[in-house]
Amino acid sequence: MDTAAAGTEVLLERAMRRALELARLGPSGGPNPQVGCVLLGPDGDVLAEGWHRGAGTPHAEADALAKVPEGAAAGATAVVTLEPCDHTGRTGPCSVALIDAGVARVVVAQPDPNPLAAGGAERLRAAGVAVEIGVLGDEAAALNERWATALRLGRPWVTAKWASSLDGRIAAADGSSRWITGPAARADVHRRRAEHGAILVGSGTVLTDDPALTARDGDALLPHQPRPVVVGLREPAPDAAVRAHPEPLLRVRSHDPAAALEAIADTGATSAFLEGGPTLLSAFLAADLVDEVLVYLAPTLLGGDRLATLDLGVPTIGAQRRLTIREVHRLGDDLLVVAHPDHREA
Amino acid sequence: MDTAAAGTEVLLERAMRRALELARLGPSGGPNPQVGCVLLGPDGDVLAEGWHRGAGTPHAEADALAKVPEGAAAGATAVVTLEPCDHTGRTGPCSVALIDAGVARVVVAQPDPNPLAAGGAERLRAAGVAVEIGVLGDEAAALNERWATALRLGRPWVTAKWASSLDGRIAAADGSSRWITGPAARADVHRRRAEHGAILVGSGTVLTDDPALTARDGDALLPHQPRPVVVGLREPAPDAAVRAHPEPLLRVRSHDPAAALEAIADTGATSAFLEGGPTLLSAFLAADLVDEVLVYLAPTLLGGDRLATLDLGVPTIGAQRRLTIREVHRLGDDLLVVAHPDHREA
Ligand SMILES: NC(=O)c1ccc[n+]([C@@H]2O[C@H](COP(=O)([O-])OP(=O)(O)OC[C@H]3O[C@@H](n4cnc5c(N)ncnc54)[C@H](OP(=O)(O)O)[C@@H]3O)[C@@H](O)[C@H]2O)c1
Ligand SMILES: NC(=O)c1ccc[n+]([C@@H]2O[C@H](COP(=O)([O-])OP(=O)(O)OC[C@H]3O[C@@H](n4cnc5c(N)ncnc54)[C@H](OP(=O)(O)O)[C@@H]3O)[C@@H](O)[C@H]2O)c1
Repeated sequence: MDTAAAGTEVLLERAMRRALELARLGPSGGPNPQVGCVLLGPDGDVLAEGWHRGAGTPHAEADALAKVPEGAAAGATAVVTLEPCDHTGRTGPCSVALIDAGVARVVVAQPDPNPLAAGGAERLRAAGVAVEIGVLGDEAAALNERWATALRLGRPWVTAKWASSLDGRIAAADGSSRWITGPAARADVHRRRAEHGAILVGSGTVLTDDPALTARDGDALLPHQPRPVVVGLREPAPDAAVRAHPEPLLRVRSHDPAAALEAIADTGATSAFLEGGPTLLSAFLAADLVDEVLVYLAPTLLGGDRLATLDLGVPTIGAQRRLTIREVHRLGDDLLVVAHPDHREA
Repeated sequence: MDTAAAGTEVLLERAMRRALELARLGPSGGPNPQVGCVLLGPDGDVLAEGWHRGAGTPHAEADALAKVPEGAAAGATAVVTLEPCDHTGRTGPCSVALIDAGVARVVVAQPDPNPLAAGGAERLRAAGVAVEIGVLGDEAAALNERWATALRLGRPWVTAKWASSLDGRIAAADGSSRWITGPAARADVHRRRAEHGAILVGSGTVLTDDPALTARDGDALLPHQPRPVVVGLREPAPDAAVRAHPEPLLRVRSHDPAAALEAIADTGATSAFLEGGPTLLSAFLAADLVDEVLVYLAPTLLGGDRLATLDLGVPTIGAQRRLTIREVHRLGDDLLVVAHPDHREA
């Protein structure tokens, strides 16, 4: 590779890293992936940046193109985290927009896994636009892992979270549990709530704890709020905190985890944050409907019978629900273990 | 500090680091601490090295002195991890041996916490020997933490180990559990067994699992074997594996954890490795007789009622058994959490 080519490669990678940053400014957990775009002029100068702000708003490419004067994108390079769509939804296909703007080259991180929207690269090439796919492809795939998995499985991605003692208890014998985990762990939970399209609990938790199910930073609401979902036959009280949530309460009057996910999918959410309690959590685990497990482990021992998980349908060790640990974090005094079901790892 | 003094300091620290290495060659978990000694000539050259090989054998200082010709230690510096004893037991006081050998200076890491043996520094100083205490003192204190704690509490140090799923189970519903944790975790357990004076289980575990309770590296026995102890009224079978242990079986026909520790102390052991099962473990935890907790967490979920801990006497959250996490290790696919009871942290 000559120096000029190497220089171009560094430039494109830097632009893609920026595009990934831009992508993260958009919401996650909704029907659309997070996408960012950087438009580079022929000299490598940044003409414009764009990102997708959620369903019904312009795609990242359109957002960037809208920021340059008519004709100024001719001969430009578009650096996009996801293959431009070829699909007319609430907005026109990005492939066509890029061609119409006279863009000469499109550099993509991740091919579009959505069969409905894919085909953008093909149409661009057919129009004589140079297309390169795979720059920082792993980073882009990680960014939209939940969305892509939801697409593949045909149901929302489920992140199951619980907080327990080192011996797997969520409360002392009398049910008291404030606070098992510390402020750093609780802040981490709120940050992750905001990354999901829905937040899910059983009616037991609502009736016992009256949780708000909002994503907060201290007392302040975070910009993105997951849709609250309560699963079970008993109704939350008329003055239940969850009814004051900024997003409307979704009620699932059933005990079937799959039915809950269908109802969530119908709202457009592609990910759900399952916060328990033990009954609902165990039902999801037993039905193999959990894609990520977050266990916040507090450095304490409680013993007794207030268990984080109940019966998971594991009669013998061969049927264990094996996971792969992806990350371990120390959060204040606590530990966070992030794990994924083995059989869903590549 | 002038350059010569700084040079001497570096030299002494290096010698102390070596003395700590030597100390680790001796056994731990017995009545005596691990101690190492390096004898330096007036020019800083190493005259001899010594370490303590366990009760009834020469102390580290005597071991080193025995390796130099008569008179050759005159004017030497003795670098010792623990304050030389001033006590006549099965061997004479090391303070006197050092004085008799004409040693000019003694550099010590840790003062002797044993009131019976302390006083060595004083006697050395009275005889005109220069004594310096505290070089790498924290490392030395960590090395003999279990021994010193046993001395202070008047009972053996107890390390409680269990292996569980992330949700705190030790087996599937039918009791099957091979293997929850992997080979790296199991090897770690064996290495730690060898560091303790005794290894302790309840009769339930002996009758169910028939464990050998030896410390092994693969099939080979490690050099140091903890004394096997079985607590409970039911007798191990005549052909129980534990009866073939290289150390004689200690039977404690009682359900009282304190009685078990007294019986272990009577053998001279200053540390015990408690390997369960859940009944015995819970009794020790409830009695607050555990000094270190090792939780091997396998990345799996089991649910059900085969719990690692049972009732710990925690009626309400204020009575939780709070720990401080000291270390977290990834061992193969598993996690090891090393934690100590909060109220025993400095
Ligand atoms: N440490 C933590 O991370 C954490 C998190 C959440 C909750 N908690 C604690 O958990 C406790 C509540 O436990 P829980 O198990 O009662 O809570 P839950 O799982 O939130 O609610 C159980 C209820 O959900 C309904 N339900 C939904 N799907 C079900 C299914 N598949 N099978 C059976 N019932 C189903 C039933 O209500 P209906 O009868 O109304 O249908 C059931 O009684 C509270 O004390 C709370 O503090 C702890
Ligand atoms: N995952 C792990 O780390 C691990 C480790 C060890 C064992 N295990 C499993 O644990 C299971 C055995 O469980 P377990 O709880 O029966 O084992 P255990 O604690 O080893 O034995 C219980 C027995 O010990 C005696 N005992 C001693 N102190 C007692 C006390 N304070 N209170 C009551 N009884 C006391 C009683 O026997 P007497 O009636 O004879 O007096 C009692 O039945 C096995 O399946 C084994 O595989 C797992």
